Amino acid sequence: MNFKMMGRFVGKILLVEAVFMVPAMLISLWEKEYASVIAFLWSLVAVMVAAALLLLLCRGSRNQFYAKEGLACVGICWIVMSLLGCLPFYLSGAIPSFIDAFFEIVSGFTTTGSSILPEVESLPKGILYWRSFSHWLGGMGVLVFLLAVSSVGGGDSGFTMHLLRAESPGPNVGKLVPRMRKTASILYKLYIILTIINVIFLLLGGMNLFEALCTAFGTAGTGGFGVRNDSIASYSPYIQNVCTVFMLLFGINFTCYYLLLLRQFKNVLLDEELRLYLGLTVGSIVLITLNLKGVYATLGETLRQVSFQVVSIITSTGYATADFDLWPGFSKAILLSLMIVGACAGSTGGGFKCGRALLVIKSLRRSVRQVVHPQKVQVVRVNGQPVGESILQNTNAYLAAYLIIILLSFLLISVDGFSITTNISAVLTCFNNIGPGFEMVGPTCNFSAYSTFSKLVLIMDMLAGRLEIFPILILFSGSTWRHR
Amino acid sequence: MNFKMMGRFVGKILLVEAVFMVPAMLISLWEKEYASVIAFLWSLVAVMVAAALLLLLCRGSRNQFYAKEGLACVGICWIVMSLLGCLPFYLSGAIPSFIDAFFEIVSGFTTTGSSILPEVESLPKGILYWRSFSHWLGGMGVLVFLLAVSSVGGGDSGFTMHLLRAESPGPNVGKLVPRMRKTASILYKLYIILTIINVIFLLLGGMNLFEALCTAFGTAGTGGFGVRNDSIASYSPYIQNVCTVFMLLFGINFTCYYLLLLRQFKNVLLDEELRLYLGLTVGSIVLITLNLKGVYATLGETLRQVSFQVVSIITSTGYATADFDLWPGFSKAILLSLMIVGACAGSTGGGFKCGRALLVIKSLRRSVRQVVHPQKVQVVRVNGQPVGESILQNTNAYLAAYLIIILLSFLLISVDGFSITTNISAVLTCFNNIGPGFEMVGPTCNFSAYSTFSKLVLIMDMLAGRLEIFPILILFSGSTWRHR
Repeated sequence: MNFKMMGRFVGKILLVEAVFMVPAMLISLWEKEYASVIAFLWSLVAVMVAAALLLLLCRGSRNQFYAKEGLACVGICWIVMSLLGCLPFYLSGAIPSFIDAFFEIVSGFTTTGSSILPEVESLPKGILYWRSFSHWLGGMGVLVFLLAVSSVGGGDSGFTMHLLRAESPGPNVGKLVPRMRKTASILYKLYIILTIINVIFLLLGGMNLFEALCTAFGTAGTGGFGVRNDSIASYSPYIQNVCTVFMLLFGINFTCYYLLLLRQFKNVLLDEELRLYLGLTVGSIVLITLNLKGVYATLGETLRQVSFQVVSIITSTGYATADFDLWPGFSKAILLSLMIVGACAGSTGGGFKCGRALLVIKSLRRSVRQVVHPQKVQVVRVNGQPVGESILQNTNAYLAAYLIIILLSFLLISVDGFSITTNISAVLTCFNNIGPGFEMVGPTCNFSAYSTFSKLVLIMDMLAGRLEIFPILILFSGSTWRHR
Repeated sequence: MNFKMMGRFVGKILLVEAVFMVPAMLISLWEKEYASVIAFLWSLVAVMVAAALLLLLCRGSRNQFYAKEGLACVGICWIVMSLLGCLPFYLSGAIPSFIDAFFEIVSGFTTTGSSILPEVESLPKGILYWRSFSHWLGGMGVLVFLLAVSSVGGGDSGFTMHLLRAESPGPNVGKLVPRMRKTASILYKLYIILTIINVIFLLLGGMNLFEALCTAFGTAGTGGFGVRNDSIASYSPYIQNVCTVFMLLFGINFTCYYLLLLRQFKNVLLDEELRLYLGLTVGSIVLITLNLKGVYATLGETLRQVSFQVVSIITSTGYATADFDLWPGFSKAILLSLMIVGACAGSTGGGFKCGRALLVIKSLRRSVRQVVHPQKVQVVRVNGQPVGESILQNTNAYLAAYLIIILLSFLLISVDGFSITTNISAVLTCFNNIGPGFEMVGPTCNFSAYSTFSKLVLIMDMLAGRLEIFPILILFSGSTWRHR
C-alpha cells in the first residue's frame, strides 16, 4: 500500500472540508450563535491540524498507485472526513452524543438524510447550514471536487481514474471527455448551475435565502435533511412542486445534461436508463394515485402528494410532504421497491441504480435465451452498444454484495428487538441513502431509538451504499493489507 | 418444439400420478369415507383419460430433444399434474374452492406446506394421506421417479439429462454414477430407505401407522403438511426430536449418503456445503436459544423448541411446535434469513441452497481479490475443485431471477393491502417452499385471506421455487415458442 500518497490525499480532502466549514461558521457569527461559532472554530483547528500533520508526515513517495489503493483511499477519506465533520454538531452541543453526531454527518455526506434528531427548528442556523451543505458536497463527491479544482497526483494519471471510478455512482464511470480532470470540472459546473437555478425557483416562491439554500442543497445532493420539523409539508404547493421537479432532475445521469449542451438530443431521448427511470416514476405515480383514491380531497392534491413522495424515494432524497407510512399496503410496497431500484447511475441519487437494474434484467434475459438457443452467441446491449463481460460480472458481484450486506445488517440491527418491517426498511433506507423508512423509522420518526451498535452498522451501510460497497469492503479484506 | 415427445412424457407422468392416487383411495375406502372414494374415482378417470389422450395423440416423432424442451416439459408436467392432482380435494368437497384446492396441491407437490385450510383434523383420512403424499412425491421429483422405474426416451439420452437437471435442486446436477437412470434409481432407493427408517422411529414413539406415514412423508419431502391442527406441537418430545433429526437428514445432499455407502467418509466430512449447512443450523440454534432466555421453563425445552423450529425453517419443511411469530425480533430475523438460505443442493429441501450461497460468497470474494491483485488469475474452488465460469454465471443469473421474482410477487400480492411483513414473508415462504411466514401467514395462521389473484401469484412462486425458476421462466419467454 502506498500509505504516503494516501495520507497526502486525505490531508488535501481535509483542507477542502475546512474551506467549506467557513461559510457555516460565518452564518453562525451573523446569527450571533456564539456557542456554534466556537464549536466551528475548534472543529476547524482539529481539521487543519490533522491535514497539516498528514501533509507533513506523508511527503515524498513513489508515484505508483493501484486500483485497490484508490478504493481504500476513498473509503478512508470518507470515514476521516465524517469523523472530523461531525465535530461542530458535537462541540456545539446541538447533538450531545458523539455517535449520534457521527451518524448525522455520515447521513449528510452520503446524502441519506436519515436523522437521529427528533426536531430541527431549535438548532442554530450555522449548524443547520453545515448539515444541509454536507448533502451538497457528498452528492457529487468531495474527491471529484478536489479533482475538479486541483491537479492531484499529476492530473490524468491512473490515480485520478481510480478515485473517480471509486467515488462516482454507477456500474460504468461517466467519462464525458478523455481527460478525467476536465470531466470532473464539467460535472461540478453542471451541478453548480442546476443548484443555482433551483435556489432561484425557491426564492421566487417566497422562501428566504437561508431556507432556499439549505433546501436546494438537500435536493441537489438528493439528501433529504430539511430545516423544518415537518420536512417540506408546511411549504406552499408551488415550493413542493419545485422540489419534485428538481429532485427528478438531480436523479438523472449528468451525462445527459452534457449531451444536451452538445445538442445530442436524440441520444438523450433514446437513453434506455433514462427511459426506465422516467417510466418507473410515472408508472408508480399512476398506480399509487389509483390506490389512494379518496384519501386526499382532490385529484390535483393526490397527484402532488404522490409525485412528491415517489420522486423523493426513487431519487433517494427522502424529503416528505405526507406520512406515506399511513398509505395502503400496495402504495407502501411500491415505495419499498423504488427504494431498492434508485435513480440513474452518474446522478447524485442512490440505490441500486436504474442502469444496473437494466444490466441485471438484460443479462438474465440472455441466460434464458442461451438455454433456448444454446448455439447462438448472445450479447447484452445497452443503447445499442455491446456491454463487456467484465461489467456484467461486476454488476452481478455488486448485486451479491448488496444482498449479503443488507441481510447481515438486518440480522445485526435486529438484536435491538424492533419489528421486521422497521429493521428491513431501516437497512434499505440507509444502504440506499434515502432517509425515511417505515413504522418506527417512518417519515415522521427518527433513528434515535437504535443502540450505538446498530447505529454503527447503519453508518457502515450508508457509507457502503454511497461509495458502492467496494471502497468499504476492501478496507475489511485481509488481502488488502497484506504485503506482497 | 418437440410437442409430441413432450405430450407423451406428460402422459407418462400422469400415469405415475394415477398409480399413486390408488393407495389414497383405498385408505378412504377402508375408513368408509365414501364421498372421498367417489372423488378419487372421478379424479382417477380424469387423470387416466388425459394420460390416454396424450399418449395416443402424441405417438411418433423425431427423437431430438433440446435443453429448452426439457425445461418447458418439466414446467408443464408440474402444472398439469397439479391441475389434476387437486381434483380429489375439490370433488370431495374437502376444499370447496378450486383455486384453493389448486393452491393446496401445488403447495404439496412443491413441498411448501403453506395451507389455505384453517384446520385439518375434520378432513377425510384418504384426503389427508394424498395431501401428505404429494410432499413425498414432489420432494425427490416425479420425473426422477419415472426415470428410476422406466426407460423413457431411451434411457440415457440427452433427454433424461435435461429432465433430471431441470427437476433436481441445486446449481449442479448430482450425477452419482455415469448413467442417469442408475443415478435416479439410487436416489429413490436412498429416499425410500430413509423414509422407512423415519416411519419406524415414529412408530416406536407410539404414533399410529397413518400418522407416522403422513408425518414421514412431510419430513422426507421437507414439506410441512401435518395431520393435526397444531402441526407437531401436541406430539411427545420424543416425536418432536425424531422429526428434528430427520428433517435435518433430509436437508443434506443425497450425494453424501451415497458417498457414505461407498465409505468415502473423508469426502463427506470435508464437504464445504455440508459444513455451511450444519454450521448455520448450530449457530442459529445457539443464537436463538440465547435470545429466548426466560421464555421457556428449562434450557432443555428451549433447545428442543429452538432446534425444531430452526431445522424446520432451514430445511424448508415448515412443521411447527411453537408459534415463532411471538419470539423476539432477533430470533425472527434469524429465521427470516434462514428462509432465504435454505438447505443443501441435491436434497429435498428448498430455498436458495447452501451450495449456491457458497458460490455467491466465493465469487464475491474473488471480485474483491481481483481488485487487490488485478494481475493474478483468480479461480473459485469448492471442495478443492475449480468451479467453471458457466456455473458461476448461472448462479448469478439465478440470484438475479430470484430477486426479481420475489420483488415482483411482493408488489403483486400487496394489492390485497396486507402488511409489509405479511407479504414479504408470504412470498419468501412460498418461493422457498417453506410453509409458514410471519404475522397473517404465521405458523398458527393460513393463506386463505389472500385474493384469487394473489393465490395464483403465490402458486407460480411455489412452482418457480421448487423447479428453480428456469422451467417456469422459460414458459413465459416468447423465444421459447417462436419457430426457428
